[in-house]
Amino acid sequence: MGLPVQLISGATRAERVDRVAVEEPLELRLSTPGGPVPLGVLMRTPGDDRALLLGWLVSEGLLPDEFTLHVDPENGNVWHLMTPDATRLAAGARLAVSSSACGVCGSGSVERLVARASPPSWTAGPLPAAWLASLPDRLGEQQPGFHATGGLHGAALFHAGGARVAAFEDVGRHNAVDKLIGACVAALPLTDHVLVVSSRAGFEIVQKAVTAGIGVVVTVGAATSLAVDTAAAFGVTLCGFARGDRLTVYAAPQRIAAGEG
Amino acid sequence: MGLPVQLISGATRAERVDRVAVEEPLELRLSTPGGPVPLGVLMRTPGDDRALLLGWLVSEGLLPDEFTLHVDPENGNVWHLMTPDATRLAAGARLAVSSSACGVCGSGSVERLVARASPPSWTAGPLPAAWLASLPDRLGEQQPGFHATGGLHGAALFHAGGARVAAFEDVGRHNAVDKLIGACVAALPLTDHVLVVSSRAGFEIVQKAVTAGIGVVVTVGAATSLAVDTAAAFGVTLCGFARGDRLTVYAAPQRIAAGEG
Repeated sequence: MGLPVQLISGATRAERVDRVAVEEPLELRLSTPGGPVPLGVLMRTPGDDRALLLGWLVSEGLLPDEFTLHVDPENGNVWHLMTPDATRLAAGARLAVSSSACGVCGSGSVERLVARASPPSWTAGPLPAAWLASLPDRLGEQQPGFHATGGLHGAALFHAGGARVAAFEDVGRHNAVDKLIGACVAALPLTDHVLVVSSRAGFEIVQKAVTAGIGVVVTVGAATSLAVDTAAAFGVTLCGFARGDRLTVYAAPQRIAAGEG
Repeated sequence: MGLPVQLISGATRAERVDRVAVEEPLELRLSTPGGPVPLGVLMRTPGDDRALLLGWLVSEGLLPDEFTLHVDPENGNVWHLMTPDATRLAAGARLAVSSSACGVCGSGSVERLVARASPPSWTAGPLPAAWLASLPDRLGEQQPGFHATGGLHGAALFHAGGARVAAFEDVGRHNAVDKLIGACVAALPLTDHVLVVSSRAGFEIVQKAVTAGIGVVVTVGAATSLAVDTAAAFGVTLCGFARGDRLTVYAAPQRIAAGEG
């Protein structure tokens, strides 16, 4: 999917179209005599949906011997599983799966988040692009676990005034962000703060920023389509590929002053 | 955490101790008049558990106004949330969260997997180390989406005889593996196959391999402690940091013939 972005490199700022990985929720519903039961939601790249659902059922130990699996005629992000084993499966599934994204395929992930969260407010002025681009290096200085194991993600919170507020590591990139937000729970909403993560930006990273009131997100990696949509809907400044003096800005570039720093 | 590994580099093979990222499940239980209700399970790096849970509750929109949060006196991987809002929270949580890992903290993740899966069988001989180390490059040739966006993970399945069976990409690394397994569902169990992933190896990657009967896993990144424990328990050969002619072997090295290839 091609999206308009701003590429900031040193003091220059250029518009271009970047290809981003497509991320959309896929919901699997089990048909039971009592009605459909959501078995789970996967945030995935569309395509090969049947293979994905079959493999996921195998991995979860839920694949029935007899079944049919078909896409909803009105919503390509919803699939239906019909099986004579529905009752047994529904019982097993109670312990097995569901997700915070359940239901998102019906109402739309972004719309559902809009219903429970507001756009983060921002009272600080525009931030120097060079400073934002430098934040992954400053996060790296706070990743002793990554340097020792290569297996940990990092997340850090900076105040728009420049100070580093906190940094955490975890095997899960979402966990590292949750640890940050939890450590600052008494200070919510985190107005005028910048979230920096060592990973890519998917929907859930931006969702966590929105919920915590964080107005700027900087990642080392790429952003997904749904992350960009969400950031745009909430006016969150979303920057990816932050390296050296370069940034790719996917949403809300007005909070970045290019060329300063 | 330090673990004994074999480092293979070209024709040489050395034992050493590597530090790996610690991964353990953390379960949050809501105390209700009807008994504890599991709110969710996070595969996380222990430490800062209170901050993690608080941040996760904020992100999920579940943090109550009044509550106490305390660790179980007998199990450091289980926490209890007590709140006057328990009834409302339990209702919201039905749509909100739970996970395939629910219950793992009680019985042990590996033990629970043992209860529903068998060690993959392996009839092929030992595999040349140089061939295994080359597989991430061959996976990379099948990642057009990653090369275009930088935002997709890849997974590929190779037969021990050398042929590439299938390859998939997805924003989620677990999804890429599930797509592979689902595409090969008619051929399960996948005896004498090698799973290659562009990411790290966490518990869930090894769990998916075990469930599909795959005996060798090769990753570009690091392995977590729980991935290593699981691979060892099921006799799955687990290799990380596969680059150039090098491999770090975390479990079941007997399926690798060093120096050949």
